[in-house]
Amino acid sequence: MFSPLPKRSDNFSSWYNELVVRAGLAENASVRGCITIKPYGYAIWEKIQHIFDTAFKKTGHVNAYFPLLIPKSYLNKEASHVEGFAKECAVVTHYRLKMAEDGINVIVDPTAKLTEELIVRPTSEAIIWSTYKNWIQSHRDLPILLNQWSNVVRWEMRTKLFLRTTEFLWQEGHTAHATQHEAEQEALQMLHLYGDIARDYMALPVIKGIKTQNERFAGAENTYTIEALMQDGKALQAGTSHYLGQRFAKAFDVTFTNRSGLREYVWGTSWGLTTRLIGALIMTHSDDDGLILPPKIAPIQVVMIPIYKTDGERALVVSQLKNCETLLMNQGISVKLDDRDTYKPGYKFADYEQKGVPIRVVLGPNDLQKGSIELVRRDTKTKKIIAIEHLHEQVHSWLHEIQENMYHRALSFQKQHMILVDDYASFKEQIQTKGGFILAHWDGTTETELKIKEETKATIRCIPLDGIEEAGTCIYTGKPSMRRVIFAQAY
Amino acid sequence: MFSPLPKRSDNFSSWYNELVVRAGLAENASVRGCITIKPYGYAIWEKIQHIFDTAFKKTGHVNAYFPLLIPKSYLNKEASHVEGFAKECAVVTHYRLKMAEDGINVIVDPTAKLTEELIVRPTSEAIIWSTYKNWIQSHRDLPILLNQWSNVVRWEMRTKLFLRTTEFLWQEGHTAHATQHEAEQEALQMLHLYGDIARDYMALPVIKGIKTQNERFAGAENTYTIEALMQDGKALQAGTSHYLGQRFAKAFDVTFTNRSGLREYVWGTSWGLTTRLIGALIMTHSDDDGLILPPKIAPIQVVMIPIYKTDGERALVVSQLKNCETLLMNQGISVKLDDRDTYKPGYKFADYEQKGVPIRVVLGPNDLQKGSIELVRRDTKTKKIIAIEHLHEQVHSWLHEIQENMYHRALSFQKQHMILVDDYASFKEQIQTKGGFILAHWDGTTETELKIKEETKATIRCIPLDGIEEAGTCIYTGKPSMRRVIFAQAY
Repeated sequence: MFSPLPKRSDNFSSWYNELVVRAGLAENASVRGCITIKPYGYAIWEKIQHIFDTAFKKTGHVNAYFPLLIPKSYLNKEASHVEGFAKECAVVTHYRLKMAEDGINVIVDPTAKLTEELIVRPTSEAIIWSTYKNWIQSHRDLPILLNQWSNVVRWEMRTKLFLRTTEFLWQEGHTAHATQHEAEQEALQMLHLYGDIARDYMALPVIKGIKTQNERFAGAENTYTIEALMQDGKALQAGTSHYLGQRFAKAFDVTFTNRSGLREYVWGTSWGLTTRLIGALIMTHSDDDGLILPPKIAPIQVVMIPIYKTDGERALVVSQLKNCETLLMNQGISVKLDDRDTYKPGYKFADYEQKGVPIRVVLGPNDLQKGSIELVRRDTKTKKIIAIEHLHEQVHSWLHEIQENMYHRALSFQKQHMILVDDYASFKEQIQTKGGFILAHWDGTTETELKIKEETKATIRCIPLDGIEEAGTCIYTGKPSMRRVIFAQAY
Repeated sequence: MFSPLPKRSDNFSSWYNELVVRAGLAENASVRGCITIKPYGYAIWEKIQHIFDTAFKKTGHVNAYFPLLIPKSYLNKEASHVEGFAKECAVVTHYRLKMAEDGINVIVDPTAKLTEELIVRPTSEAIIWSTYKNWIQSHRDLPILLNQWSNVVRWEMRTKLFLRTTEFLWQEGHTAHATQHEAEQEALQMLHLYGDIARDYMALPVIKGIKTQNERFAGAENTYTIEALMQDGKALQAGTSHYLGQRFAKAFDVTFTNRSGLREYVWGTSWGLTTRLIGALIMTHSDDDGLILPPKIAPIQVVMIPIYKTDGERALVVSQLKNCETLLMNQGISVKLDDRDTYKPGYKFADYEQKGVPIRVVLGPNDLQKGSIELVRRDTKTKKIIAIEHLHEQVHSWLHEIQENMYHRALSFQKQHMILVDDYASFKEQIQTKGGFILAHWDGTTETELKIKEETKATIRCIPLDGIEEAGTCIYTGKPSMRRVIFAQAY
């Protein structure tokens, strides 16, 4: 089992795929493009869910649940939405199977054909705005600040574990407002919430920005994004927040009586993040030995492994570790004491290293005699032997340091790979060699954007929110530009 | 808005449907048989999820996530499973839509037909056991104790809010074991866990029992159930736990090497409960004025409503209530202070009564002067005016009392409606008039069971686990029987 992983520098993609499987995060399912999220991967998703859900509720949002299946005609109501989503969806056409004449196989019952086909939701704007029509009459019914945790299906042709899968899990916020200003503020608020949590909990430095028209969500007036940089120099869109204007309100005829007594269309937003965040975590932080998890996201923060030869030693060592476990758990730290005797310590060391557990604690008979205990940090591999009475103090300070260190390491990588480029030759060279976030001038047209994409596979990830005005010329056309945008190849 | 609900005694079904909608729990969606779970209803589901999820984890279970879409052929592998589930499922046959020639509508792209149809999961035994095949080689890989929170689709012909819907939310546990004994114990353990939580948190008294062969889960060797009794005398199956034997292991060829080095089929269980539990809560506890929620499940335990005429009064009253709110929230009580000035107190009283909030706290300028505050219990409608400094104490003891009172009231109802019947005429009479749990002798055959069902619509809900041996004769055939079973009409 513990042959080394492929090296990141040799084959980043194989390294990633093998790591995901070997760390017990996920695996490809037998259904094309779908994955099984295994318990350890799902435990990470539960941590992520809990953190975001708490933040959503603090900002006044509540959860609800809308149907999985959407009548085909609904998708059709918002013109650009149908363009973006109708192409890649699972279509339910029948509602019954029956036994075939051979008495062995089941076949689709042709008499059970739906009069209107149903689509497995690729996103829920259509079904939700069709419902909001009945919920909203007056300004007193606004704002509606809803979120939904759910599964969605998009028929992807090329899939990759967590990053792009036919079915994925996500949250989708859908809000409705009485004014344009309020909707715009909501979309921005959620962008900042995403970025702050990515930074503070997942140790992910992200660039906050606006998508170009071409990269916008199908049906949005404006899409905000948080973009993260992976260790192979490729970008990953980690979350998006859309200002929808009145487009879905118009498509589904959702109006309200405003404070002046006039009938007006409702203003909307939507925002989402998905299980691909787990992919972002992995590709930002991990090394050739496996996963490295930030303590605030790690399902297990401390693993304890006993070393012993005899049954007597085992009893003593495990009993001491149980005391330590209780001590740490009472401080709110998640601890796993792995005292299985079916696996050797060496196997356990490698396994938890691969699983990215932030701190490993080891205790053997010698330590016990000396009153000491050994700790190893996953991020730096630093080893320390301390007096056992300082265990909690040491764990506490290391968990804090690991979280900080991981963020600063990732931030420093991002800064090193944020390159100003002023001519197309250097641009192509940079994209083909090191990748990274390339800050370059662009003339603002979709035409230029698409040509650059075609020639280099680089897309405009965003127009950074904190970018400064700076006169320049488009790297491709030489036309004038007033600010740099961020190009990168992306997942 | 506040015309009275239909009375339970006049039309229980209309009362239920209107209550669900008016209390803001759920409504029918535009998709046939599907519902939208509204924020207040979903908040109840979140409470239920949290309680059960915590209990699952304490008993060693972990969560995971398996694909929504299941290849048609998988359903076919377990003979009785396909019988039970293939008849009522949503079938995905295509993966793309395209614009019609009219340039207006979208149609299914006939070139995007799947070579094998996919079924939207009606339950996940098939997809999970097909995966377990790859996860299990040795006894060291066992037990596997997994749970999944997910949505499932069953094409129901007659639907009812929460109780029977085309799509519903649930948890489904799927465990794999090395021995028959361990699997049997697991199925029983989960039954008791379900029953205990229903009693201790949801204030639902339930009968634990075994299903007859005819009522068994399609693919199980044995199905355990918890059965609750609704106020209209009908039964509701609130959760089931299945001992699967080796049936799914055989269907998907899942074997392991046991401790003696021999290859053996794996033993399995599955167990689930769904959003219909919310229906059980409503139909057990509520009255003609609306919902009544047990404090441990209530998303809002205490609602605070200010009374005032002038702005000055409002400021004083709301400020005092904010202090009270902080005080209670610091004790872990969920409080909502409704200080909206767009609605009158009378509207708010009726609204929160309909929503079943356990305690209402009201403060006006007169109270403020006297240093008193008014409280009303939702379950008994008892009103009390107390000195404001005793608020926390009073709320704390009432929450406890309400929880207890609701359970005992429901238990007493159940006991009153648990009837011993010894002849078929009385049986029919009882079923047609009062309903309830009817304890009667049955000859043990499916034939008799089906005839009774056909003639009276009563089914055998279960063979109670705590039933005693008692010689008797079948109410229908007069054949000998050794124990009574529970008959009822059921949802």
